Amino acid sequence: MNPDELKKLLQAFRNGEVDEADVIGRLRTLPFEDIGIAHVDHHRSLRQGAPEVIFGAGKTIEQLQAIIATMAARGSNVLATRLDSDKGQALLDRFPGGEFDPLAGTFCLTAKTPEACEGTLLVACAGTSDLPVAREAAVTARMFGHRVEELTDVGVAGIHRLLSRGDTLRSADVIIVVAGMEGALPSVVGGLVSVPVIAVPTSVGYGAAFGGIAALLGMLNSCAGGVTVVNIDNGFGAAFAAHRILQGRAR
Amino acid sequence: MNPDELKKLLQAFRNGEVDEADVIGRLRTLPFEDIGIAHVDHHRSLRQGAPEVIFGAGKTIEQLQAIIATMAARGSNVLATRLDSDKGQALLDRFPGGEFDPLAGTFCLTAKTPEACEGTLLVACAGTSDLPVAREAAVTARMFGHRVEELTDVGVAGIHRLLSRGDTLRSADVIIVVAGMEGALPSVVGGLVSVPVIAVPTSVGYGAAFGGIAALLGMLNSCAGGVTVVNIDNGFGAAFAAHRILQGRAR
Amino acid sequence: MNPDELKKLLQAFRNGEVDEADVIGRLRTLPFEDIGIAHVDHHRSLRQGAPEVIFGAGKTIEQLQAIIATMAARGSNVLATRLDSDKGQALLDRFPGGEFDPLAGTFCLTAKTPEACEGTLLVACAGTSDLPVAREAAVTARMFGHRVEELTDVGVAGIHRLLSRGDTLRSADVIIVVAGMEGALPSVVGGLVSVPVIAVPTSVGYGAAFGGIAALLGMLNSCAGGVTVVNIDNGFGAAFAAHRILQGRAR
Amino acid sequence: MNPDELKKLLQAFRNGEVDEADVIGRLRTLPFEDIGIAHVDHHRSLRQGAPEVIFGAGKTIEQLQAIIATMAARGSNVLATRLDSDKGQALLDRFPGGEFDPLAGTFCLTAKTPEACEGTLLVACAGTSDLPVAREAAVTARMFGHRVEELTDVGVAGIHRLLSRGDTLRSADVIIVVAGMEGALPSVVGGLVSVPVIAVPTSVGYGAAFGGIAALLGMLNSCAGGVTVVNIDNGFGAAFAAHRILQGRAR
Amino acid sequence: MNPDELKKLLQAFRNGEVDEADVIGRLRTLPFEDIGIAHVDHHRSLRQGAPEVIFGAGKTIEQLQAIIATMAARGSNVLATRLDSDKGQALLDRFPGGEFDPLAGTFCLTAKTPEACEGTLLVACAGTSDLPVAREAAVTARMFGHRVEELTDVGVAGIHRLLSRGDTLRSADVIIVVAGMEGALPSVVGGLVSVPVIAVPTSVGYGAAFGGIAALLGMLNSCAGGVTVVNIDNGFGAAFAAHRILQGRAR
Amino acid sequence: MNPDELKKLLQAFRNGEVDEADVIGRLRTLPFEDIGIAHVDHHRSLRQGAPEVIFGAGKTIEQLQAIIATMAARGSNVLATRLDSDKGQALLDRFPGGEFDPLAGTFCLTAKTPEACEGTLLVACAGTSDLPVAREAAVTARMFGHRVEELTDVGVAGIHRLLSRGDTLRSADVIIVVAGMEGALPSVVGGLVSVPVIAVPTSVGYGAAFGGIAALLGMLNSCAGGVTVVNIDNGFGAAFAAHRILQGRAR
Amino acid sequence: MNPDELKKLLQAFRNGEVDEADVIGRLRTLPFEDIGIAHVDHHRSLRQGAPEVIFGAGKTIEQLQAIIATMAARGSNVLATRLDSDKGQALLDRFPGGEFDPLAGTFCLTAKTPEACEGTLLVACAGTSDLPVAREAAVTARMFGHRVEELTDVGVAGIHRLLSRGDTLRSADVIIVVAGMEGALPSVVGGLVSVPVIAVPTSVGYGAAFGGIAALLGMLNSCAGGVTVVNIDNGFGAAFAAHRILQGRAR
Amino acid sequence: MNPDELKKLLQAFRNGEVDEADVIGRLRTLPFEDIGIAHVDHHRSLRQGAPEVIFGAGKTIEQLQAIIATMAARGSNVLATRLDSDKGQALLDRFPGGEFDPLAGTFCLTAKTPEACEGTLLVACAGTSDLPVAREAAVTARMFGHRVEELTDVGVAGIHRLLSRGDTLRSADVIIVVAGMEGALPSVVGGLVSVPVIAVPTSVGYGAAFGGIAALLGMLNSCAGGVTVVNIDNGFGAAFAAHRILQGRAR
Repeated sequence: MNPDELKKLLQAFRNGEVDEADVIGRLRTLPFEDIGIAHVDHHRSLRQGAPEVIFGAGKTIEQLQAIIATMAARGSNVLATRLDSDKGQALLDRFPGGEFDPLAGTFCLTAKTPEACEGTLLVACAGTSDLPVAREAAVTARMFGHRVEELTDVGVAGIHRLLSRGDTLRSADVIIVVAGMEGALPSVVGGLVSVPVIAVPTSVGYGAAFGGIAALLGMLNSCAGGVTVVNIDNGFGAAFAAHRILQGRAR
Repeated sequence: MNPDELKKLLQAFRNGEVDEADVIGRLRTLPFEDIGIAHVDHHRSLRQGAPEVIFGAGKTIEQLQAIIATMAARGSNVLATRLDSDKGQALLDRFPGGEFDPLAGTFCLTAKTPEACEGTLLVACAGTSDLPVAREAAVTARMFGHRVEELTDVGVAGIHRLLSRGDTLRSADVIIVVAGMEGALPSVVGGLVSVPVIAVPTSVGYGAAFGGIAALLGMLNSCAGGVTVVNIDNGFGAAFAAHRILQGRAR
Repeated sequence: MNPDELKKLLQAFRNGEVDEADVIGRLRTLPFEDIGIAHVDHHRSLRQGAPEVIFGAGKTIEQLQAIIATMAARGSNVLATRLDSDKGQALLDRFPGGEFDPLAGTFCLTAKTPEACEGTLLVACAGTSDLPVAREAAVTARMFGHRVEELTDVGVAGIHRLLSRGDTLRSADVIIVVAGMEGALPSVVGGLVSVPVIAVPTSVGYGAAFGGIAALLGMLNSCAGGVTVVNIDNGFGAAFAAHRILQGRAR
Repeated sequence: MNPDELKKLLQAFRNGEVDEADVIGRLRTLPFEDIGIAHVDHHRSLRQGAPEVIFGAGKTIEQLQAIIATMAARGSNVLATRLDSDKGQALLDRFPGGEFDPLAGTFCLTAKTPEACEGTLLVACAGTSDLPVAREAAVTARMFGHRVEELTDVGVAGIHRLLSRGDTLRSADVIIVVAGMEGALPSVVGGLVSVPVIAVPTSVGYGAAFGGIAALLGMLNSCAGGVTVVNIDNGFGAAFAAHRILQGRAR
Repeated sequence: MNPDELKKLLQAFRNGEVDEADVIGRLRTLPFEDIGIAHVDHHRSLRQGAPEVIFGAGKTIEQLQAIIATMAARGSNVLATRLDSDKGQALLDRFPGGEFDPLAGTFCLTAKTPEACEGTLLVACAGTSDLPVAREAAVTARMFGHRVEELTDVGVAGIHRLLSRGDTLRSADVIIVVAGMEGALPSVVGGLVSVPVIAVPTSVGYGAAFGGIAALLGMLNSCAGGVTVVNIDNGFGAAFAAHRILQGRAR
Repeated sequence: MNPDELKKLLQAFRNGEVDEADVIGRLRTLPFEDIGIAHVDHHRSLRQGAPEVIFGAGKTIEQLQAIIATMAARGSNVLATRLDSDKGQALLDRFPGGEFDPLAGTFCLTAKTPEACEGTLLVACAGTSDLPVAREAAVTARMFGHRVEELTDVGVAGIHRLLSRGDTLRSADVIIVVAGMEGALPSVVGGLVSVPVIAVPTSVGYGAAFGGIAALLGMLNSCAGGVTVVNIDNGFGAAFAAHRILQGRAR
Repeated sequence: MNPDELKKLLQAFRNGEVDEADVIGRLRTLPFEDIGIAHVDHHRSLRQGAPEVIFGAGKTIEQLQAIIATMAARGSNVLATRLDSDKGQALLDRFPGGEFDPLAGTFCLTAKTPEACEGTLLVACAGTSDLPVAREAAVTARMFGHRVEELTDVGVAGIHRLLSRGDTLRSADVIIVVAGMEGALPSVVGGLVSVPVIAVPTSVGYGAAFGGIAALLGMLNSCAGGVTVVNIDNGFGAAFAAHRILQGRAR
Repeated sequence: MNPDELKKLLQAFRNGEVDEADVIGRLRTLPFEDIGIAHVDHHRSLRQGAPEVIFGAGKTIEQLQAIIATMAARGSNVLATRLDSDKGQALLDRFPGGEFDPLAGTFCLTAKTPEACEGTLLVACAGTSDLPVAREAAVTARMFGHRVEELTDVGVAGIHRLLSRGDTLRSADVIIVVAGMEGALPSVVGGLVSVPVIAVPTSVGYGAAFGGIAALLGMLNSCAGGVTVVNIDNGFGAAFAAHRILQGRAR
């Protein structure tokens, strides 16, 4: 039942064409019906503050192009993630105004510049191998309108590198910490700052790294209080979580 | 090297008793020395916004009493978690001004009322068996000065119960979602609101619940974007993470 | 918004006291409001065909007695599961009309005889150690109004025992198969009959049985097509699933 | 011992050529002999109501063609699953009357239209990535003669999409719910309906999805009573289970 | 259908009271009927060469006494395993002619001396902590009528101890090797002898021993060809497997 | 120290050139020295009864050809396992007298016919997908000189197929049972016969089969006493174990 | 064959009573015989530099007392580990000259002061809950004659505490790092020093700490090069490894 | 703040341009600032005794060439690991003075011969399949200036091969033991020598080897005291650990 049908129902009620019991009967089933919720869903990006996002892994070039064309046609900003170079190039060919970041595996098509938000997000990563995940987080956050700083190669085995960047740490409002192997960086960062710390385990490592399980467990057991964790390699999810946090500050 | 020693060194330098190279040599080793950092550590609760917290599991009544007495003596607010009823009662006997919550397993001794912070934290939990963890989160957040709402028994198998509480969901600034078994509640909540959602898996369940692993995996794989996760049964950690978020709003 | 409020709103609309936009605005939020859904929930046992059920593990005798008293007061049949002997005896003391089955760990308080359903449920179990789970399933199904046959100690290492009970197998409309250790019985049964087979792994075994994981995996990988599985030791869940199936037959 | 031999034995007994003890001795070993059971096995599709099914993964095109040709020659309906596009096309080339569904990875060769059964099966899936498994279930069920409805992209993070399809949910006699990631959809569906719900975890997801383990555990721990589960990605098995259920209704 | 009924059927056939088709029809269902198979089952100990065995874990003293009394009454030798000292003493009180081995946790009641078999079984164990499992194997094998040698504390970290017992190794016909921790002993033994080697992992160890998983995996991956493995702590099973082997030699 | 050196030492001792203490000192270190053990190792195939065996996975065609050439040159029978078709064909090109079995992935080069052993080995497998592993076992056993029977597609979901082959089962001296998925076949076979049963789990299956873990666990937890298990897909190991057993019978 | 027998053999050879072939035949079997190796084993503590050690878990007080008495009787230093307070007190009662450390769970009976070794061992631990394992390591190392420093509560969430102890870190020759939860401390320490770092995961933590698995995996995946790891809670093993290292320095 | 800035600050203080409080304020933040720590980091190879090392897996040829060129330009010795043949050849083309070891997967570019260290490292491996990991360890250790012996194919199933190399074992100062499958070799070696033993599990094996987990667990549970373990396949890490140990001997 869309709004038009609802108006007709109310009109019919006022006109005495249907009685009260009928209207209530129809309305009581509303939780199972479609009272314009599709419309709300249509506005999901507004309700949740997210641009339209496509998870690119497992989709063909043709599927990606079709989906993006549809989204672009309705004026949305578009962010596609988990793209390899072939897909990225194919999207650039089709949508020359877009941007493909081969390290992050992301493609951005910006219809309107995202409204700038208050606050700074810092994306710190332990090693250069963690960069793709960190960059996915950074690209995503920028598509959400956030100012992003990046800090690279500050793993805990060379603790001075991290400590020497105290100003950068202290000036962030939210910090995403990306690390593979033992995943220890969020614990150290979480002990140095009081702002929200979102930990992202990466699948970097071999053997007993178990594709990111070691880092994931390390982060879930962080001895620094109040560190939260997202799925392995989920740079997008960390940025979305940061967006939920920073959005609250701007209200 | 404490501040006094540092002053003496600078004085000696100004007086020409030590030369520039000596001073630089001494200072370069500072990262390995103690330039009053203990003092900063002493003020960790200020730096991180946390009251002094004791993890009560595995500590004897005598140890707990001694630690709390020390903390109370320096005027700190004290929060002890993971206490059974025997320990709780023993702490009440020793510190009659404190509060023991047998459901949460927490003991609070409040020297000064925590300064009230802006914003509302909602702690929602799926079933009544998840209540101890949810309550630990609520008690912790209140000790950090936050206003806390609680929502109970809104598991996804009876989705109407959750949906009927739309106002409560919409008025929260941060939501902690506590669930055992399949851990699906954060996905539903995360799709309904745009504020930060912190998921806490509980060890509730049996068989293939594997002491909370099923719920943990469910939450890490949430199809709702931007949900973050803490360790199994870690109500305290979720509240600390919420505190990091709400603290930012208040600045 | 309860039905009364809804009636008032419609009346006000018909009277011209509120306009169409207001009514639509109020109604659009309904999915988040309470339009008598609580009432439906109140009738959950009717909607899902289930008596009121209490999971007894982790609840105190006092809690159990209070919950059952409440349920009994509103005329419901009551089934409590996972009770040890102490709890069972305490419930008998309080509710002398109830029945405690020490093997199944169940307590039944029957206000009105469950309406008899068509069809026969067979509960077969591999070894005598699996009996508690099988019995929990049988007791539950009987509380749902189903006729239940039980078949015991027909494990696959003595395949003649099972085969000699062909009549029993052939006369069942749904079969619950309970097995621990390697969990092979459902595969054999599933190959002998064409009716629904619900497999229940039990935590019986030691070493590499891993508390029921071996049986669970065996059942999920059954080479007999169309066998479905419930959680380890979940006799109640299997009976509930059987109830969902048999209920359909009776319509 | 085939029926002919059995006849000869009985004849010899009647004729006094063998005595009673010999006959009983021969018959007692029957459980280890072949008393026409192969014949019954030959009729397995009748006994279990299943068409002849081929699991296509790991078989070569030549093997598939040979097996299907044999089955077709004896007039059976044939269903092959887990086929990639190359295999599907090669089967179409060989058996032009068949149907290849590239999304489901199935090939159907229908000798005689399956007899229509009573009841409706609903196959609901959480996300578009789960479609291949859902479609395998739908194709399978249709080959068994069942009426199938499909519902797509009703994941729990956008709960309104599911709730708006209340009529579809309410009109189903059995529901197969297909979901990857956290696998929460069966819990919500199971709470909304009273008919049998068969949950199929898919290997959709990454990181801590562990190839479907997260979804599998979520479904095994469903807080909705009476949900049963099949193996990861096992759309065929779910349809077969649904067939066992619906078949009972039709008797 | 018991033998008597079968005789009646045959008689009726010879007498012309039933015709051939009827007899064949009755006989064809025999795999699902009871043609004295219970009788055969009754003789399972003869068919498999095993005495009657009771798995004592999880059974009460009363249950154990009742079962053993029944077995003893029909003249069987009885072996009960997994008994603690209380149970063992209670069985001795009831059956003074029995033998309780507190290390092995076994109780033996011997009605007739087991017929001596050819061949020697060697039970070797790595450390003194593995002794209970090794002794369970030894006691079991002796109840099956086998000659058993025992070799203790020959773990691989002191390889000379094992090598110095070359004569013992060389004179065995089957070797059971019991080891916890890394479970390496079967690999070394398997390389020194050409007779069957049955490996038994024990739950001895802590931390990453994971209750015997480390030893189990070590044994399954033994670099010595032809080593076979039984479940963790399953001394009984290893002895039964040895019995199957030695029994063949004696024919 | 080779035998020649040993002779020289003894000669020198007899001649009085070295004294008793020197000889004893030299001899005492023998466990760490080479007293012709390499020679014994050289004869490992004799000591353990095995032909020379090459694990082909991970070796190049060139490596395989070189190793086999060396072995053939010293007159050994050669068995190479885990070969794909390319390797098999390349070996046939180089050694035209050999035999490549593409299903088993084995290559045999027989210098002298293996001496025939007493006894019959039965290799039974649950499904056609398990055939490669079963065939590897059969080929291996024949290379060891054993008579091998094969039984295929006797999975437990069609239990009659297995039961109808009672004669085959009863005439075997050792049975290797190969099964994937739930791995239940060894339990049924183990209950029907009293000879040694060696279970081989295969990696056949998908989803929660976990590459053979489900079958492995099922077999380790077999409710049939005395079943032993080898590593996943280890047909060679099972045949070697059978050889160890049958070898004993022949003595 | 003990040295006396060997002497006799050589004598007989010299006297011409046995010929060369006989001697060589006897000697060739030596690896399987006992040429005084037991004597060497008797001196294992000398060969490996270890005092005699008893793993106390799972042993009764009586067993412990008997073993220690035997060891003390031959003048050995004795170290017993994993003792609870009851066992510790009972050992003190029996051996008043010993020392029981209730935190470490160790009992030491020192017959002769261990010879002091060169070099310093530092035992650092992350939190106070890790102290029992750290202390077990320290006590063990002292029994081996090493100088031990201890550093407590230097977890990575308060990185300044560790950095302020630079002198202590720099003056150590080997460092044992003990940590539970995420196990990150060894990575930081390993990056600060160039001496050997031995990491000991502890079972401290809850939920996804999985009894020390998280810490173990973190340490195995340490991003600091050259960190080695021992079993969970294995303070003794770490100290023994340190002893092997420091012993080398002293030569 | 670099040393120049620090000099200026001190100068300004002596000149009275800034007061004591300012200087102390600036200095107190030093742990978060850059007081020449980058310089120290620049010298990490000196501080930790390591050459510059590149983990080659996941890096492109172009990235490898660029990194090595930079390192070579500053006169460092370079070691790249985990290179396949294509990468190795490409590096040889670019840096003809380097050495590529295809078995180890390593590329070495030696600017100055590493200073020879005291002591001998023995790298022993169980089977030829373990050679790549063993060789990586050997190459790495030589780049650190250590003398390396190699011992191959001394797996525990042919224990004589290991025992016959007693001299080699006894002359080593540190032993790296590399093994896959059941990983038992370190336990045997650890029992034969008193020097440090570093165990490296390899991913060699199949089925229940689980990519090295079986070997890893075996080594962590070694019954030989004081064996330490590194990550699966981590030959480099083992060599680095050996370097840390031998470096201490040379001081």
